[in-house]
Amino acid sequence: MTPDLVTFGETMLRLSPPAGERLETATELDFRTAGAESNVAIAAARLGTDACWLSKLPDSALGRRVTNEIQTHGVDPRVAWSTSSRQGTYYIEQGAAPRPTTVIYDRTDAAVTTAEPDDLNREAIRNAQVFYTSGITPALSETLEATTAELLADAQSAGTATAFDLNYRGKLWSPAEAKATCESLFSDVDILVAAERDIRHVLDREGDARALADGLVDDFGFETVIVTRGDEGALALNDGTVYDQPAFETETVDAIGTGDAFVGAYLSRHIAGDTVGDALCYAAATAALKRTIEGDLAVVTPAEVERVVENRGGGIAR
Amino acid sequence: MTPDLVTFGETMLRLSPPAGERLETATELDFRTAGAESNVAIAAARLGTDACWLSKLPDSALGRRVTNEIQTHGVDPRVAWSTSSRQGTYYIEQGAAPRPTTVIYDRTDAAVTTAEPDDLNREAIRNAQVFYTSGITPALSETLEATTAELLADAQSAGTATAFDLNYRGKLWSPAEAKATCESLFSDVDILVAAERDIRHVLDREGDARALADGLVDDFGFETVIVTRGDEGALALNDGTVYDQPAFETETVDAIGTGDAFVGAYLSRHIAGDTVGDALCYAAATAALKRTIEGDLAVVTPAEVERVVENRGGGIAR
Amino acid sequence: MTPDLVTFGETMLRLSPPAGERLETATELDFRTAGAESNVAIAAARLGTDACWLSKLPDSALGRRVTNEIQTHGVDPRVAWSTSSRQGTYYIEQGAAPRPTTVIYDRTDAAVTTAEPDDLNREAIRNAQVFYTSGITPALSETLEATTAELLADAQSAGTATAFDLNYRGKLWSPAEAKATCESLFSDVDILVAAERDIRHVLDREGDARALADGLVDDFGFETVIVTRGDEGALALNDGTVYDQPAFETETVDAIGTGDAFVGAYLSRHIAGDTVGDALCYAAATAALKRTIEGDLAVVTPAEVERVVENRGGGIAR
Amino acid sequence: MTPDLVTFGETMLRLSPPAGERLETATELDFRTAGAESNVAIAAARLGTDACWLSKLPDSALGRRVTNEIQTHGVDPRVAWSTSSRQGTYYIEQGAAPRPTTVIYDRTDAAVTTAEPDDLNREAIRNAQVFYTSGITPALSETLEATTAELLADAQSAGTATAFDLNYRGKLWSPAEAKATCESLFSDVDILVAAERDIRHVLDREGDARALADGLVDDFGFETVIVTRGDEGALALNDGTVYDQPAFETETVDAIGTGDAFVGAYLSRHIAGDTVGDALCYAAATAALKRTIEGDLAVVTPAEVERVVENRGGGIAR
Amino acid sequence: MTPDLVTFGETMLRLSPPAGERLETATELDFRTAGAESNVAIAAARLGTDACWLSKLPDSALGRRVTNEIQTHGVDPRVAWSTSSRQGTYYIEQGAAPRPTTVIYDRTDAAVTTAEPDDLNREAIRNAQVFYTSGITPALSETLEATTAELLADAQSAGTATAFDLNYRGKLWSPAEAKATCESLFSDVDILVAAERDIRHVLDREGDARALADGLVDDFGFETVIVTRGDEGALALNDGTVYDQPAFETETVDAIGTGDAFVGAYLSRHIAGDTVGDALCYAAATAALKRTIEGDLAVVTPAEVERVVENRGGGIAR
Amino acid sequence: MTPDLVTFGETMLRLSPPAGERLETATELDFRTAGAESNVAIAAARLGTDACWLSKLPDSALGRRVTNEIQTHGVDPRVAWSTSSRQGTYYIEQGAAPRPTTVIYDRTDAAVTTAEPDDLNREAIRNAQVFYTSGITPALSETLEATTAELLADAQSAGTATAFDLNYRGKLWSPAEAKATCESLFSDVDILVAAERDIRHVLDREGDARALADGLVDDFGFETVIVTRGDEGALALNDGTVYDQPAFETETVDAIGTGDAFVGAYLSRHIAGDTVGDALCYAAATAALKRTIEGDLAVVTPAEVERVVENRGGGIAR
Repeated sequence: MTPDLVTFGETMLRLSPPAGERLETATELDFRTAGAESNVAIAAARLGTDACWLSKLPDSALGRRVTNEIQTHGVDPRVAWSTSSRQGTYYIEQGAAPRPTTVIYDRTDAAVTTAEPDDLNREAIRNAQVFYTSGITPALSETLEATTAELLADAQSAGTATAFDLNYRGKLWSPAEAKATCESLFSDVDILVAAERDIRHVLDREGDARALADGLVDDFGFETVIVTRGDEGALALNDGTVYDQPAFETETVDAIGTGDAFVGAYLSRHIAGDTVGDALCYAAATAALKRTIEGDLAVVTPAEVERVVENRGGGIAR
Repeated sequence: MTPDLVTFGETMLRLSPPAGERLETATELDFRTAGAESNVAIAAARLGTDACWLSKLPDSALGRRVTNEIQTHGVDPRVAWSTSSRQGTYYIEQGAAPRPTTVIYDRTDAAVTTAEPDDLNREAIRNAQVFYTSGITPALSETLEATTAELLADAQSAGTATAFDLNYRGKLWSPAEAKATCESLFSDVDILVAAERDIRHVLDREGDARALADGLVDDFGFETVIVTRGDEGALALNDGTVYDQPAFETETVDAIGTGDAFVGAYLSRHIAGDTVGDALCYAAATAALKRTIEGDLAVVTPAEVERVVENRGGGIAR
Repeated sequence: MTPDLVTFGETMLRLSPPAGERLETATELDFRTAGAESNVAIAAARLGTDACWLSKLPDSALGRRVTNEIQTHGVDPRVAWSTSSRQGTYYIEQGAAPRPTTVIYDRTDAAVTTAEPDDLNREAIRNAQVFYTSGITPALSETLEATTAELLADAQSAGTATAFDLNYRGKLWSPAEAKATCESLFSDVDILVAAERDIRHVLDREGDARALADGLVDDFGFETVIVTRGDEGALALNDGTVYDQPAFETETVDAIGTGDAFVGAYLSRHIAGDTVGDALCYAAATAALKRTIEGDLAVVTPAEVERVVENRGGGIAR
Repeated sequence: MTPDLVTFGETMLRLSPPAGERLETATELDFRTAGAESNVAIAAARLGTDACWLSKLPDSALGRRVTNEIQTHGVDPRVAWSTSSRQGTYYIEQGAAPRPTTVIYDRTDAAVTTAEPDDLNREAIRNAQVFYTSGITPALSETLEATTAELLADAQSAGTATAFDLNYRGKLWSPAEAKATCESLFSDVDILVAAERDIRHVLDREGDARALADGLVDDFGFETVIVTRGDEGALALNDGTVYDQPAFETETVDAIGTGDAFVGAYLSRHIAGDTVGDALCYAAATAALKRTIEGDLAVVTPAEVERVVENRGGGIAR
Repeated sequence: MTPDLVTFGETMLRLSPPAGERLETATELDFRTAGAESNVAIAAARLGTDACWLSKLPDSALGRRVTNEIQTHGVDPRVAWSTSSRQGTYYIEQGAAPRPTTVIYDRTDAAVTTAEPDDLNREAIRNAQVFYTSGITPALSETLEATTAELLADAQSAGTATAFDLNYRGKLWSPAEAKATCESLFSDVDILVAAERDIRHVLDREGDARALADGLVDDFGFETVIVTRGDEGALALNDGTVYDQPAFETETVDAIGTGDAFVGAYLSRHIAGDTVGDALCYAAATAALKRTIEGDLAVVTPAEVERVVENRGGGIAR
Repeated sequence: MTPDLVTFGETMLRLSPPAGERLETATELDFRTAGAESNVAIAAARLGTDACWLSKLPDSALGRRVTNEIQTHGVDPRVAWSTSSRQGTYYIEQGAAPRPTTVIYDRTDAAVTTAEPDDLNREAIRNAQVFYTSGITPALSETLEATTAELLADAQSAGTATAFDLNYRGKLWSPAEAKATCESLFSDVDILVAAERDIRHVLDREGDARALADGLVDDFGFETVIVTRGDEGALALNDGTVYDQPAFETETVDAIGTGDAFVGAYLSRHIAGDTVGDALCYAAATAALKRTIEGDLAVVTPAEVERVVENRGGGIAR
């Protein structure tokens, strides 16, 4: 079986207190898994794409907790098992204004940080239609920076399209470090996704969304650039054409994972042969649905996404 | 003891995942009971009416789960126990826009679908002041269609007032089927309650709320028609007089059961001798309170309803 | 990808109140999935076998709840999706002597009861090493009785070994019905597993475990007969040799699924090429571990099973 | 409707931390209701007796919490509502040897302590077959001591049989106080139930169970004396005949309420016309089942009790 | 160790059903502690002040439940332990408009109502910088009224600044009673905090917030008067200068304890030497954060408060 | 304030799935804190000793989660806050034979591993009566090995008695490493506590418990050696006298922390001036109670321990 989408990155355990409770006084934590690249694979798989996720995990109940949840949604985890390293973890406390949602990462020395190209299923990448990773991966260790570069190059030479989400995390590295590393990877990237604020803040560029996309295409030759703009939606530039997709209105239950849902849905429809505009709309609808669900994962069905695309109202179906 | 209000219909087990969780990944379900006709009886009983509910249930812990919860609120369940059939169930996943609240009914072949008139306490109906059922009941089986017709006729000839909520459920039958069956029952109905959208969509009528009510009275001779209009409140037509009741503002926790709370409160005040206008206002206040409570049931007290009727604000009483 | 083990049968939703609570007063239910044949596939997959499960499910969140949990453990569900039928469910209330554990099945007219051979992946059966189903499957409907017979015959003619667990359920059929149907299938069964009490009570045979096994081999020509004997362990008869495996001592948390864990582990080791004696010991150890875990599933690892096989004590590893 | 059994006493809210947690560090409490006399009424009602419970409660959500739970099980609460007093409460922390189960009563000045005979439905007592209260009631206040005496006398003169469980609570009064008060009530008691240790410790009597029963009959002229003896069962003396009932073996989940289950079942069968021996056996079986259930209440069915009486084993019914 | 802030008052157990559930049908309660004066001490201690709380509690697991939670946040509880009295409790059901949040106090005869000056650590008061209590304390019993007066006088003569929050509770006393008692204490109060509505309703004064503050300073000679105005913020009058502090916008999770968070933060910054204006702003920010947290307590850190003071937005920090 | 007992070591977050659930499929975790040295301080503080705990923690909500829980029980945490390091964590899955209780440590590079003597409150150690740490501390890092040695020497020269629990953890180091390091510390240890199995397995000694104690005293000159022997109790050798303390029988809910409860209680009574024999009995009783409570902590009171010492039975106190 040859997956059409292969993603590579870290997946963490996610621990969170109940809504309204503080982490420092909580006595019970909700226990899930989360990681940009597995989130993307899960969203795509749920929407019909044959997807696999590559990573390295400790050979323990904690590592299996991760693969179990990824398998639940039909993604095939092809994992190198490590006997000596730890499982990345993150704690999230949902906020309520003016108290922000806060994240504490505990991912130092996670097994994945030692992943070298030959630990991973390179064959899967070479045979896939799309290979995806994000800016989080090279930020995690020097080893991962090298591995990410090699896998992207590998994919390119095998004719696999590459997609990359800038996904800047200020807790992992500085804007300058992120800029240097990510830009060094851009020559092997076909589809770039980046938040407008990160394009400004990390890639140090100016102008409106259209100008930012133009500049990136000019400088790095991306086939497609997608600028995500939060409540203002997303703008894609592909082959000289601009696609402007507004965001769907949503009652937010949990905002984490919205971007990954967007990317997973976009890649799923891209692989299925949709136009950029159709894929973008589908992605925005999936992202809106994700925000109504607890956890990082877009636990949605194609029918549910299509219902939003068609803009039918809420209410009760009975 | 002779109950003043007798209702007849199906009550289901109600299973729901926690807010923000999807049914397909949930590991724990909230477990309650729900059914239009027992909801109505419970609302009325809690507001002071002597009420009883007629139905047929499997003779099992599941059937007793239903009667236990109905008894909790002071309603007398007079139930035919079946040894061979199943307990109707429904799953509900609360939505958040643009994700709708979804309901999965699992009520096929429930015990109640085999209920014939002589399984039920016809004496109670004949001695009551009001007999109530809804359009859900005849939709459930051919047996129930015949039983509903016979019980309504029975009530009429005994001088018991009859109340009927159209309560159209698209998952049970088509608008055309509903129209045919319900209209065949209307000659034995004194008080008709129907949502404005169902009057248009199912009964295939046109005009504003007033015109709809007028038309129904003209065509079927109802003593009272109540058109429920969601956020716009309700309109009643009784003896040529129109009563227009706005909705009370509410923060919705769970919208299911709002209509039943409205009807239960209306019938309770009707039985107590209130004017149509007063009963309507009381019903709207009860419906508003219901929306602030998890589950199908209007777990309210007369004092709480009266406080809303008097339109006193929220805040904290201490 | 060709699975080595293919199983076929019904998987239900499993709803249970907390320990010590009664179903009829519970307000929260634990929500899992369970079914003899998926339990067997899951146990085998967790122990290293490439396994797939065939069935028919409603195309709804409830059907997906089932496939999600089966995928979690690495089993590939190849399912025919039905748009018109229901999802089987069972309620279980754990007992404490003298109160028995009670099970309420609500599986009538489940989607699977309409499964015909061509709804299912016959190719997978023909290419597998072992095809497994149990006596529950033909008990569920006439359609399933015919389908079971056809699939077993199919497997036989394709050279796939067949395994069958008698798994008598008194709530589904009488001993006489079970005897007639199961015996009609035995000519296409290679490995028979049956509880000693069912061999006596359902197949109407006498003698000690050895004699029962001898008689079954003589009359039906099974390659292997395994007689499960609860606390007394299990006895296997294969090619004239008797294997007597005592049960491992266990603190029981949840007894449901013990037999399926046993069979899944046995078939896993059988496929891996173990001797009957080694596979039997592994099966008994897996069954003992299952009893320490909530739910129907043997959520165990090979290392954990091997630790029990080596009979190392409990205690705390730190 | 005339209830056959009328009970009178206090029912409290019951708050308990999860098993293994201490009250002083708990963050969540299980919330139920409990009281000897409502426990007895509930056990009897569940076993088929028409039962009612008399008491006085605060007119608040806390008082309604009590009546709701009592109604759940089919008992009719006829309650005087007080606007000025509090709701009795008790905290229970389940023990594990050598840590005892501990109870903290918070029942001072509960509404019921002000209940005078005319607050209560004396008509119901006079028309019942049996009137029941326990030694807890007169211990709660001087008012209740007088009320208890008057109601027992009332019942006697109306020809209603009276049953009284000594139910000594060391946290409420001294043995000497209990002895004086209870013995002053005995002339109006027909059926006395008392624990063997209380007969010795409180009533200050000696001898074996038989001798204790004989002495009580001789001194106070009871129609029936039942000596409860924990694991050793119970002994009844009626009309000169001794009935010796062993206890049924049980896995204890929650021991609280065992005695009330025993008494409720005994009175239910007494009212139904059983012999003393049959009623005693039924009572012992009900008590054994109660111990397998969380909370004070015997949430059982007649069929379940009969199964224990017939001494059928545990296991799984499926 | 000499605490800089000493507070004195009652702390109760706080029992609440889950959001959307009614107290009268709840089966599980959230279990916390709460009391104006310990809330104030906790807020101050969390923000860096050395704080102690004086009270009287029953010597039981319930009393220890209170001191445990107070110690959790670094406050030193110096408590007189009583062997004979009860623990105050309150039930709170969170509302949703038009259903109000309702509080049921069950604090009659709590241990603290018998606290006399010599039960308490007067030395701590005399050595502190600030002594704080609220109008709830003298409302609880005549003994407490006398004790409050004596402790305030004591503090004054020892040179300890005194702070008093009017904190009117209509369930404890009438406006007239509150006015008489509180005004009799005002001569020993340096810092008065009062809600604008209570100044009007209880102290029977008129005018805008500024006029109310002026009048109170004129009549009672307070060093500082702080008028809290809900959504409109707070106004302070100190040494002839007026400080006007708007409220910070907030998504309210639980409004209870907002005022105590405000006062605790104000006193903490007052003790740390902040200007009135700075302390007021810090207090408003702490109050805004409190509203985003379940329970009475301001579980916040100085860094979090400073972030709000600097008015940085919400969002996600990762 | 000068604490009488000072302990030093790591405290971790403790995450555990519900009983009977596997970590790899859990969706909710119980969240507590645990560490040998804080467990000891908490047991002692709860039994009346003025205790403080020294450590180093990350300056985050996770670090505060630890100090909050330690403060809850009256221990004073004097902690060096680190801005750059992580919080140690451990996962525990409670077993049921033959499935062992399993522990996964995730404590690499925890803040405490960088703790140098001057990070800590050396003054507190010098002024205490007893300074305690365990063999876990030097096992965690080379820095901690040096720090432990220096603090023990410091205590000795200041006249503070030193207590050391061998506490061997096979997941941290080999027996040979533990032997070398611990024996190098023994010259500065007055009271040694060690499990009999560790004396054999780690310190490589032979003979019965008495002989082991004798040998240790002879070779290292301890003032007191306590050999803990699980179900067989404990043996102490002090000044040539042997004390043999049997274990109290117990129903185990959670075995983790038993040894720490024992040591904390022993040191508490030692500081209070008890004889070795009395302290040993008190320690055994505290250990027995700990086993009945969820979590690592001995949440007990002196009265509860004394009740066990007096060997009074279980049962229900009401």
